[in-house]
Amino acid sequence: MDEPVTLINSFEVPPDAATQFIAAWQQTRDYLETQPGYVDTALHQSLTPEAEFRFVNVARWQSAADFAAAIQSPGFGAAAAGLAGYRPHAALYQVVRT
Amino acid sequence: MDEPVTLINSFEVPPDAATQFIAAWQQTRDYLETQPGYVDTALHQSLTPEAEFRFVNVARWQSAADFAAAIQSPGFGAAAAGLAGYRPHAALYQVVRT
Repeated sequence: MDEPVTLINSFEVPPDAATQFIAAWQQTRDYLETQPGYVDTALHQSLTPEAEFRFVNVARWQSAADFAAAIQSPGFGAAAAGLAGYRPHAALYQVVRT
Repeated sequence: MDEPVTLINSFEVPPDAATQFIAAWQQTRDYLETQPGYVDTALHQSLTPEAEFRFVNVARWQSAADFAAAIQSPGFGAAAAGLAGYRPHAALYQVVRT
């Protein structure tokens, strides 16, 4: 059975690029939320501009296969093009303790 | 007025150290959940052992001041001693888009 997964993607974004980054993230989200298995997402911004990861995206998907299909789908590349300049640190996770 | 904040702390943990890390994280959580302003926490483990950040802790606090007071409180050092061997990448965040 497929298990729900959480994508956590931490981005390195220069202090003066926050507005541009948010616009690019929104364009990517607008595409991904149309894909099968998308659950929800939350973009976190650091309180301080000089944080190592200025933005962290936490997105839930119904399965790892759904997420893989979404980022391999034909429209993803164009939708996410604006994020290309920001170094991501991404992996899929499951909650193991609360 | 104080705003709620989210601590996101990504840890570098060797593949063979997951069990030890979880035990150390639980001891830290057991202490922090007794502190004023603690809301909740979720420990995320990567699906693959070789992820850059094997564990990501996402914890909510009622304010940045509450979190700062908790990690400066007298009992924190002993409670978190088991995490000392794992390199953390931590910052405080607010959700800016969903």
